[in-house]
Amino acid sequence: MGMAADGVRRANLSQVLRLLHLDGSTTRAEITAATDLNRSTVGILVAELVALGLAEEGDPQLTGSRGRPSPLVSLCSRRTVVVVLDVKVDSIAAGAVGLGGDIVMTHRQDRPRVRTDVDTTVADLAVMARRVLEELGPDQRVMAVAISVVGLVNDEGGTVDEGPNLGWQRAPLANMVRQALGVDLPIVLVNDGDAGVWAESRRGVAIHVDDVLYISGEVGVGGGIKAGGVPLRGAMGYAGEIGHMVLDPSGPSCRCGSTGCMEVLVGENALLREAGRREDGGQEAVDEVLEAFARGEPAAVAGVARVGEWLAIGVANLVNVLNPSMVVLGDLHARLHPHVTTTIEERLWQQSLVARRSRVDVVAAALGRNASMLGSAELALESLLDDPGGYDQGPTVAAMTSRLDAAPRSA
Amino acid sequence: MGMAADGVRRANLSQVLRLLHLDGSTTRAEITAATDLNRSTVGILVAELVALGLAEEGDPQLTGSRGRPSPLVSLCSRRTVVVVLDVKVDSIAAGAVGLGGDIVMTHRQDRPRVRTDVDTTVADLAVMARRVLEELGPDQRVMAVAISVVGLVNDEGGTVDEGPNLGWQRAPLANMVRQALGVDLPIVLVNDGDAGVWAESRRGVAIHVDDVLYISGEVGVGGGIKAGGVPLRGAMGYAGEIGHMVLDPSGPSCRCGSTGCMEVLVGENALLREAGRREDGGQEAVDEVLEAFARGEPAAVAGVARVGEWLAIGVANLVNVLNPSMVVLGDLHARLHPHVTTTIEERLWQQSLVARRSRVDVVAAALGRNASMLGSAELALESLLDDPGGYDQGPTVAAMTSRLDAAPRSA
Repeated sequence: MGMAADGVRRANLSQVLRLLHLDGSTTRAEITAATDLNRSTVGILVAELVALGLAEEGDPQLTGSRGRPSPLVSLCSRRTVVVVLDVKVDSIAAGAVGLGGDIVMTHRQDRPRVRTDVDTTVADLAVMARRVLEELGPDQRVMAVAISVVGLVNDEGGTVDEGPNLGWQRAPLANMVRQALGVDLPIVLVNDGDAGVWAESRRGVAIHVDDVLYISGEVGVGGGIKAGGVPLRGAMGYAGEIGHMVLDPSGPSCRCGSTGCMEVLVGENALLREAGRREDGGQEAVDEVLEAFARGEPAAVAGVARVGEWLAIGVANLVNVLNPSMVVLGDLHARLHPHVTTTIEERLWQQSLVARRSRVDVVAAALGRNASMLGSAELALESLLDDPGGYDQGPTVAAMTSRLDAAPRSA
Repeated sequence: MGMAADGVRRANLSQVLRLLHLDGSTTRAEITAATDLNRSTVGILVAELVALGLAEEGDPQLTGSRGRPSPLVSLCSRRTVVVVLDVKVDSIAAGAVGLGGDIVMTHRQDRPRVRTDVDTTVADLAVMARRVLEELGPDQRVMAVAISVVGLVNDEGGTVDEGPNLGWQRAPLANMVRQALGVDLPIVLVNDGDAGVWAESRRGVAIHVDDVLYISGEVGVGGGIKAGGVPLRGAMGYAGEIGHMVLDPSGPSCRCGSTGCMEVLVGENALLREAGRREDGGQEAVDEVLEAFARGEPAAVAGVARVGEWLAIGVANLVNVLNPSMVVLGDLHARLHPHVTTTIEERLWQQSLVARRSRVDVVAAALGRNASMLGSAELALESLLDDPGGYDQGPTVAAMTSRLDAAPRSA
């Protein structure tokens, strides 16, 4: 086969796998209709995906009122997975995600602030990754490790250039995880907010929406931006650090070195402070405030209102700058969403020229705390989706586990 | 010639014209080298551009040390022009721009605030456009009218949806100008900041820079954003309304209905106010403050410093959100640039996580008050550049002038 023909075949194979990945199980007839390929070509491509262990064919289905029954093609979504790791301030998580965005498993573990340094984090991640591998079947394959992290990640490498709430500077996280796992797999490292907007765009509330602002907070507040249908990266991949937009120059100081950043006005600690609680109480303290809010406790109600007001100012600013048609609130702000939507909408009307002229929906994220992991997995799966036949599907879990036994572990 | 061959010929013709448009006069040998077309094809294409009146060939030039002399190809930059109109708050302008970004002429006219309503503005623009036509030669052709305006312009049509500093709401400016000029030409309407970033990217300081934030102020403060090499438009084309980012929620009220917008802290009136002058003094009052600043008058020095501090906060916010590699200051802020650069750089270091990790140059715009007109002209020229042989180069000035005589005029 010539180079050009091989390129066409690879592109067609990629197109069919992508269709299954994005739309789920589909009959061969539907694939033929959706791709403009002819029926026999689709048959050959599906057979190739089956041979690669990426898809399987089921019983013929009757779709619509006309035509012959056509075999249903489904992904083998769990044969090949991405091991996903997620580093937030208050918690770390590990899991596995397969083709089609299939969440095979996730484990999240709250952690005290004393365990946020890089070395401890990597050791903890390795323990959790080991647990994930133990729960996978020995014949499943791991094609990549995807890591999301609340810090600046540049386009060029696997380094967290700065993580103000983790206290990290130039942490070579990808290499450290690679060493801790003792395996030579592709490692994708991505900023939490960038992963979030990607996840919500593929699997959540922002499918087919071209201009999206994703805001997600816990201790830190991050963001991800999709503009004109593509991720907004900026010159170095740092774009979307909306948590460090200053909204009140005379406000509280922020771990980034500035004062009055959006993060210190709408993050977890702002909620605790404004509700009259001690800061740094973590997820548990936030849960308590939200329960108190539900009971109508005045301090909690006032705290939520105050955070809502600052969030509204921040959202309105960003709508003026970016003109998104959707603002997605994730994590803490997804939980606050029902209580702050009116404040945000009123403020958008008052403050944002752009919002007055252009519809913008403010919605809660659909994917909860799994957003980052789904997003990083989607990014890691891109290489396989681009070249299903040529991409290495990675070692089996059995092979990985034996190598892991030689790697350092931590309590 | 078949459709496909015709498409290839058109694309090649476009490629050669674009090369001349962006790089200036070029020998045929250089065109051959730059386009990967063969020498005889380039000869045919150049001949076609000459026949279309878009280019001309000069004497053969010796380029480099080797090879035969090759004819120099230049644009007929003034045979076909775009008539450009620019609406700011304190002034309006009209001019003509030819291929290659050749500014054939511009006229700017300060105006009192009482003349900013839509009808008066259109009448004044028509008078200025007539003056431009009178100064053009009768055989020059006008291929389009391009209008830049300090207001929200949506992607879909020729309407200024909101111009807070003009007091405009849903003003159908393109149609009104078309009627006032009495000619049926293509009219391109573009927001001032969007035109500015386009102009600086084509003809100014941001050529070949992919991630650019352009900030430009007079009474209002606008912006334009280039991200990943393309304009950031947003869902409706409104992106870049950075002047209405709130930096101080308890600050002065803004004409947009909000308070403490960047515009009221760093625009012309902020400078006048902070320097102890009366607001709304226009360009003349700004000139006076800058002269006083140069003399070291304390009030003027304090005013410039205060505006510089707020500008620095705004720039740092936007660098965190967008991660540009260049921030271009236009109009008022280009004039302030030498006096505020240190403040901005210090603040970027202090406030912006992103700037600490990613080089960002803060530079003055190169194009001065002509930026908007050059940018809107470039947008209008795109249609001709895309299809040099197929695009209507428009009526002659002689034909337009006779029609203009039938149109309404104003003092």
